[in-house]
Amino acid sequence: MVSKNTIKLIKSLALKKVRNKEKLFLVEGDKNVAEVLHSAITIEKLIATQNFLDTQKVDINKIGKVIEASPQEIKKASILKNPQNSIAVCKLPDSKKLPENFESDLSIFLDDIQDPGNLGTIIRICDWFGINQLFCSLQTADVYNPKVIQASMGSFCRVDIFYTTIEILTGMAAKNQISLAGAFLEGENIYEQKMPKKLLLIMGNEGNGISSRVEKKIEKKFKIPAFNTNSSSAESLNVSVATAIFCSEFKRQKHFPFYSK
Amino acid sequence: MVSKNTIKLIKSLALKKVRNKEKLFLVEGDKNVAEVLHSAITIEKLIATQNFLDTQKVDINKIGKVIEASPQEIKKASILKNPQNSIAVCKLPDSKKLPENFESDLSIFLDDIQDPGNLGTIIRICDWFGINQLFCSLQTADVYNPKVIQASMGSFCRVDIFYTTIEILTGMAAKNQISLAGAFLEGENIYEQKMPKKLLLIMGNEGNGISSRVEKKIEKKFKIPAFNTNSSSAESLNVSVATAIFCSEFKRQKHFPFYSK
Repeated sequence: MVSKNTIKLIKSLALKKVRNKEKLFLVEGDKNVAEVLHSAITIEKLIATQNFLDTQKVDINKIGKVIEASPQEIKKASILKNPQNSIAVCKLPDSKKLPENFESDLSIFLDDIQDPGNLGTIIRICDWFGINQLFCSLQTADVYNPKVIQASMGSFCRVDIFYTTIEILTGMAAKNQISLAGAFLEGENIYEQKMPKKLLLIMGNEGNGISSRVEKKIEKKFKIPAFNTNSSSAESLNVSVATAIFCSEFKRQKHFPFYSK
Repeated sequence: MVSKNTIKLIKSLALKKVRNKEKLFLVEGDKNVAEVLHSAITIEKLIATQNFLDTQKVDINKIGKVIEASPQEIKKASILKNPQNSIAVCKLPDSKKLPENFESDLSIFLDDIQDPGNLGTIIRICDWFGINQLFCSLQTADVYNPKVIQASMGSFCRVDIFYTTIEILTGMAAKNQISLAGAFLEGENIYEQKMPKKLLLIMGNEGNGISSRVEKKIEKKFKIPAFNTNSSSAESLNVSVATAIFCSEFKRQKHFPFYSK
């Protein structure tokens, strides 16, 4: 039985101010909840069907409260259009201390990414490409927005996300001898440029691209060339799609510079 | 002034059965509407702010009815959370006759893509990479779903989309001497394989991948290798992200096979 208060709490966690006040965030979607169950994140309340609880072999001692619920009850509590079989109310982790070093050869800084779906997809891309640290400008969407969590498909448990400024990162990059490169519509063709060995890649806002404040700090400007021949064609790629193409080309050049056949 | 009937019509066009009955579909978002204004698509009703109408220099003779509206009225009529300054109710084009040839060196077949955002993003990717024809299985999301139109950012005006079966495409591919390749989690590493000169790339459903019926027709299985070293890392990439990486690598091999520095 899911109480009215629990439903109210779940719905309210769509808002950042409530998340920060209650020190809680929401994880929905069975894949995401399963990942959280096996992570270091503390679950305060797990609302799930008996079937989900059985298949996940949940260690209930690790969870504040387990509430068995019918699919109908979960539908009522969920903030998703198509709810699944579980909802986890989790403890908001303390914000991570900014590291002194870039852990991976490739790191990413997001300059005011607004769309939660884009941020979540980029977190999933980082996880795939072995990028452990994702840096976000202070105006970038909140990682604990339920839509970000949803789109990350559990990858938010494995990628460290830091909110910081370009100025702080520039200082860190200088110490670590890492190049700053940005994705622009005009710049060097990524397929014709040898990528730096260590790179902080900067991706700009959906509508406005990289801000002028950030652009000043950038040493290299890269572009993904368009392959259409029609001048009226797509003006840009979605930012998560562009991020993926950059990561793919960086890793390809490093690990598979020439195809063998 | 936007009438109650117009608002009712707009809201109802979220449903495929209404779109097919009324032979109408919805275009929202100023960039999308601007693209439609310069396309061959017939606009039955354009609801827009005076400012939008001024900046677009709309030829009102080409439009059934222009309804000037305040931002508040547009918000009331819109099916978006964050409406902009225009909504176009457009005539549903007749479904296109299946072509006899593949126009581009790279074409794509989507095997039951469900998420409208993914389909729209893939249409935008096709436009960027000069892929004129996108083939979809009969169970793939409807291109005239407002969320598909929204995510395509106007690219739906430039990419020809056909709903068909793998059997019909296999026949066409044989005649055109084009290879069928699929994106799998296990397969040849795309960075180490020389891509066929002409390719029909097959991308599978978000949850289930490529269906066994379609898999039987596939000659080559490709994968995007993961670069993380942790076995618990992301199991897959979002399908639109994976499509973009495949297109990028295909075009790179063809146009920029070796970087020059």
